Amino acid sequence: MNFGSDNQAGASEQVMKAVVAANAGNAHGYGTDPWTERATALLRETFACDLEAFFVPTGTAANSLSLSCLAQPWELILCHNHAHVLNDEATAPEFFTGGARLIGISGQDGKLSPAHLREYFRFAGKEYPHNSRAAVLSITQTSEDGLVYTPDEITALSQAAKKEQLKIQMDGARFANAVVALKCSPADVSWKAGVDVLSLGATKNGALAAEVVLFFDKKLADQFVHRRKRSGHLLSKSRFIGAQMEAWLQDGHWLKLAAHANDCASQLAKGLASVSGVRIARPTEANEVFGLLPTKTAERLRAAGAEFYEWPIVALPPEFTIANSEAYVRLVTSFRTTAEEIEKFCSVARG
Amino acid sequence: MNFGSDNQAGASEQVMKAVVAANAGNAHGYGTDPWTERATALLRETFACDLEAFFVPTGTAANSLSLSCLAQPWELILCHNHAHVLNDEATAPEFFTGGARLIGISGQDGKLSPAHLREYFRFAGKEYPHNSRAAVLSITQTSEDGLVYTPDEITALSQAAKKEQLKIQMDGARFANAVVALKCSPADVSWKAGVDVLSLGATKNGALAAEVVLFFDKKLADQFVHRRKRSGHLLSKSRFIGAQMEAWLQDGHWLKLAAHANDCASQLAKGLASVSGVRIARPTEANEVFGLLPTKTAERLRAAGAEFYEWPIVALPPEFTIANSEAYVRLVTSFRTTAEEIEKFCSVARG
Amino acid sequence: MNFGSDNQAGASEQVMKAVVAANAGNAHGYGTDPWTERATALLRETFACDLEAFFVPTGTAANSLSLSCLAQPWELILCHNHAHVLNDEATAPEFFTGGARLIGISGQDGKLSPAHLREYFRFAGKEYPHNSRAAVLSITQTSEDGLVYTPDEITALSQAAKKEQLKIQMDGARFANAVVALKCSPADVSWKAGVDVLSLGATKNGALAAEVVLFFDKKLADQFVHRRKRSGHLLSKSRFIGAQMEAWLQDGHWLKLAAHANDCASQLAKGLASVSGVRIARPTEANEVFGLLPTKTAERLRAAGAEFYEWPIVALPPEFTIANSEAYVRLVTSFRTTAEEIEKFCSVARG
Amino acid sequence: MNFGSDNQAGASEQVMKAVVAANAGNAHGYGTDPWTERATALLRETFACDLEAFFVPTGTAANSLSLSCLAQPWELILCHNHAHVLNDEATAPEFFTGGARLIGISGQDGKLSPAHLREYFRFAGKEYPHNSRAAVLSITQTSEDGLVYTPDEITALSQAAKKEQLKIQMDGARFANAVVALKCSPADVSWKAGVDVLSLGATKNGALAAEVVLFFDKKLADQFVHRRKRSGHLLSKSRFIGAQMEAWLQDGHWLKLAAHANDCASQLAKGLASVSGVRIARPTEANEVFGLLPTKTAERLRAAGAEFYEWPIVALPPEFTIANSEAYVRLVTSFRTTAEEIEKFCSVARG
Repeated sequence: MNFGSDNQAGASEQVMKAVVAANAGNAHGYGTDPWTERATALLRETFACDLEAFFVPTGTAANSLSLSCLAQPWELILCHNHAHVLNDEATAPEFFTGGARLIGISGQDGKLSPAHLREYFRFAGKEYPHNSRAAVLSITQTSEDGLVYTPDEITALSQAAKKEQLKIQMDGARFANAVVALKCSPADVSWKAGVDVLSLGATKNGALAAEVVLFFDKKLADQFVHRRKRSGHLLSKSRFIGAQMEAWLQDGHWLKLAAHANDCASQLAKGLASVSGVRIARPTEANEVFGLLPTKTAERLRAAGAEFYEWPIVALPPEFTIANSEAYVRLVTSFRTTAEEIEKFCSVARG
Repeated sequence: MNFGSDNQAGASEQVMKAVVAANAGNAHGYGTDPWTERATALLRETFACDLEAFFVPTGTAANSLSLSCLAQPWELILCHNHAHVLNDEATAPEFFTGGARLIGISGQDGKLSPAHLREYFRFAGKEYPHNSRAAVLSITQTSEDGLVYTPDEITALSQAAKKEQLKIQMDGARFANAVVALKCSPADVSWKAGVDVLSLGATKNGALAAEVVLFFDKKLADQFVHRRKRSGHLLSKSRFIGAQMEAWLQDGHWLKLAAHANDCASQLAKGLASVSGVRIARPTEANEVFGLLPTKTAERLRAAGAEFYEWPIVALPPEFTIANSEAYVRLVTSFRTTAEEIEKFCSVARG
Repeated sequence: MNFGSDNQAGASEQVMKAVVAANAGNAHGYGTDPWTERATALLRETFACDLEAFFVPTGTAANSLSLSCLAQPWELILCHNHAHVLNDEATAPEFFTGGARLIGISGQDGKLSPAHLREYFRFAGKEYPHNSRAAVLSITQTSEDGLVYTPDEITALSQAAKKEQLKIQMDGARFANAVVALKCSPADVSWKAGVDVLSLGATKNGALAAEVVLFFDKKLADQFVHRRKRSGHLLSKSRFIGAQMEAWLQDGHWLKLAAHANDCASQLAKGLASVSGVRIARPTEANEVFGLLPTKTAERLRAAGAEFYEWPIVALPPEFTIANSEAYVRLVTSFRTTAEEIEKFCSVARG
Repeated sequence: MNFGSDNQAGASEQVMKAVVAANAGNAHGYGTDPWTERATALLRETFACDLEAFFVPTGTAANSLSLSCLAQPWELILCHNHAHVLNDEATAPEFFTGGARLIGISGQDGKLSPAHLREYFRFAGKEYPHNSRAAVLSITQTSEDGLVYTPDEITALSQAAKKEQLKIQMDGARFANAVVALKCSPADVSWKAGVDVLSLGATKNGALAAEVVLFFDKKLADQFVHRRKRSGHLLSKSRFIGAQMEAWLQDGHWLKLAAHANDCASQLAKGLASVSGVRIARPTEANEVFGLLPTKTAERLRAAGAEFYEWPIVALPPEFTIANSEAYVRLVTSFRTTAEEIEKFCSVARG
């Protein structure tokens, strides 16, 4: 019963097989191998556009490297208050950008909106260079509160942002889950909606360690190879990351993995909703369920071997008030979650 | 006939099997998995001492992260003129240290000596803070010119360095090859010889992407977890790097891999030495052969499919003078090099 | 009628005379001159304690350099939402600290309180190294909203902060004004109240360009000389900054200058309070008056040559609501403000 | 008898008077004052071209800020082995550029030449991003060995550099002395000779603390205001730096000051040349004399109150060999040096 994080699952069979297969023979490295080349071609096909693609081993590297290509050290990066880049990546964005500042805007509603941007700019100081100028908007798809931005919502956000000369970066650690949830094309929620740079994560969804930064505006990509190299994120045996990415993209494998995870989350939410004392706190749109559990229930579940995180109370939707006897929890499903795990979890929860 | 680099070989069977096996079930991440724990225990056993071990995916990260724990941004890091950290890792050391400066000392002889250090300190400005103080000595074992430092040589170097309050970091991308060549214990050429921090590389010697930073002086390790996280080098699915390292160390696997590579290099050097017109330029102490080939020979080899790099002429030993019709080349063997490759290479070289 | 900023006034006669006098003869530089030595002795006397003192030419340098000695690049610096270090010094703190992050806490009430700190720590993530740890509390005395922290208030704040292992830095750009307002000793609102490092500003209060960073905990000062030098803030002809500081401190000159400015602000506030349509928004505790003026009044004043800044509406105290026909303004008095300026300003305001 | 450094002299009468005069009345700050404006106009006139000018208080700031506008953090800055930016400014260039690397080229001959550049590029690695690309050439005028680059020499250097896509920065801490020595116009040894950015120093030549960065290629200046602000080098009471610069430039005052210093150096060199046992080691082209003194002579001079620095033996011209009984010294004259000082120095030297 592991609902702790989708990065506690291993790799999918297909991805692992590709890694093993890639081990045959010698190959050039540092991104010049044929696996990387084929994976890049697949990305162009998948997103139905020309793009620059750069593979890196972690999501923190993908996010920070992409932000560092968009913001000068004296500029600001706007993001949601709950954003992973703001809360869970130490001060990596500052490190990679050379000191640009993250500004968390918005509140407890789980997604950014043009109104939040307008509110920010209404009060933002404009006495440059004393004040700092916002240069980037970072959006997380799927959001940290498990919510999915529709193509229209992203378009509205990016239009509001571009009015203020911002570039749009998307943290797509769970991008696949959003695409599946929306039944849209990858292009619909990225470049067609105004996203300039996407950190597309495979690690949480079936890879061993593989993320890719996609530049839809290729002019923005000039510095990437230098920034990746000097941060130690250019792998010498790059075939192994290329192979992961190729297998992950091939024949819609990535979307099938995400679909399974999303379905599991739906099942889990449905199951829990009927448990007395449990309150589902957010719509379950992708592969995460957020809810309030009686503390006793949470304890019983943990005693039975279930893994999940308590979630910061600041992230609770404003319409909810937590009781002393409750815990706010996040339950994440993955490509490996089984029906049995879900059933057992709900059964233990019911007590 | 791949003698381009040992990082063009893939992973060893044993390492790859371990990665596949590690894929079973769920596991905690971010370095808290049992593979990481077991690999750390093996490292303590292998080095016959207590130590702190931190896994990262690349050698550039391992070197730069370790240096950043030893040098303040206003301090200097001494290394050999040919050092990989100085020449082949972009400005990664500066990035990770926040601006410390590398100083390449010594000349074309391929290894550092206490005399080089004394020469440096004889002329080094000491008007702090106007001048910058040297804080670290970085040694590469096996050296970039294919030479191996004996335990006595490292001890002499580290003693000379410690007289000046330097910490000793070792770039051990090919540490295994040196241990095999010296028939000594890993401890003999690391902490027993005065090394404070070792970047031990598995990638060039049979892993997919696995390096480990070993702190023999544990007090120096305080900042590492923070620096690794904010540089994006803490892997979420850390079991896969732990598993590589465990398999690599188990039953002396790493030394067997290195021994094979070293033997191949000896064979290759011996074979080439008898080819008319070829001049071997450095003693072949580990898994690299440096030599002068007639340009025509080099061309014929490449036409036959051989891979190898021309090497910077600045790195030529001082007693050699290159002719217009010659190329200075580096030939690297790996755990995968075959006797057939070597024979064919020599045969084509003979013309 | 200049109420724009106290840094639009020049230097006091006494300070300027000292600069001219210091020009006689040759002198060693880089902080080794006798003026610097004497000024340091005066600082120790003034603060009634041993301390380390470092002179720099700007307040941004003083604040950022002091913060950089207290926070690691992966740590957080807590400050008020309205703090100058957060809003008006570009991303200087990030630059000097190598990427530490400022967190603006509290709201519109103009001063920090232990409750704000508790609120922050209640919700702060503690999963290191994923989350970042707060390491410093920065307090501004006089606050950016013109309010003065009493010794008890600072003591309470620093105690709450130290419970969380924070160091206390004080931005004392208008420290003199606070000391005068409180009729306390400099020690009472600095080290005796728990402040570890004080950026004491002379520039806004009668110097040409002179600030000093005071370390009451001398162990924290180790890195300062290096950080000052490499940021270009070590003046070669250091006698001229030492001379400013010496003259400024001598015979309580700095407090007399501040007392004049404070008295002027009181007069101005009193005068304006009686003007119909004007609403004084903050208590006038030091040398700044914050108020709501009818837009027409503001325009008339500007037309008559008055200088002052409109102030961000976010900084308005919560109990006030601004009307469309109003402007929120800040009026700053200085050691040079004259009774005539104040009278004329009030007279024009009355219309 | 102060020959320690020209920054041990104070300020010229004319400059000090201007500072005092600038103290009258209120003035806008942060570079928006009329003194700054007039000084900028004078600079345009002096250099006979349009240019962008930015005032800062120190030479280290001027050099590092200008370099940071020309080199990316992953690029290299070439300079002479003896360059002040390399040896005497801590790691300020690394700090301001975010980690670009300085490469000292050339040897003991005291000036750079196109041959040195060609030698560098002959051996420079070009495997980007593994190797780092040179982006800037920094030249010091007057050089650290007291030598002056002629317009033709600078032109030849900048042409060789531009062939490699380098930008040219000039450290002009003693630019005035060179202009006087060459009897040329300021334009002849700056933009007309290919210099893109000049750090023009007034501090060593009669100012209190005033340097200016001149961008002849205005497109390169975009980031300067941001970089200056976030490094704390934008002075609030900017009139005082503007006033220094205005007075310094007016009516050729700067060149008169430099001419006096240069004449004194000539006198000193001439006087010393005739002292038995003294060997003048460099041509005295500007305001510095480099020579070998018998140790006893040096001691006698110091005992008589003379101030001067021993100079690093690495900087000795190759045709000289220092004896055990000799000291290599640098003697600097300034606008304040008197004939009496020189006579007395020579007289004591003669014994």
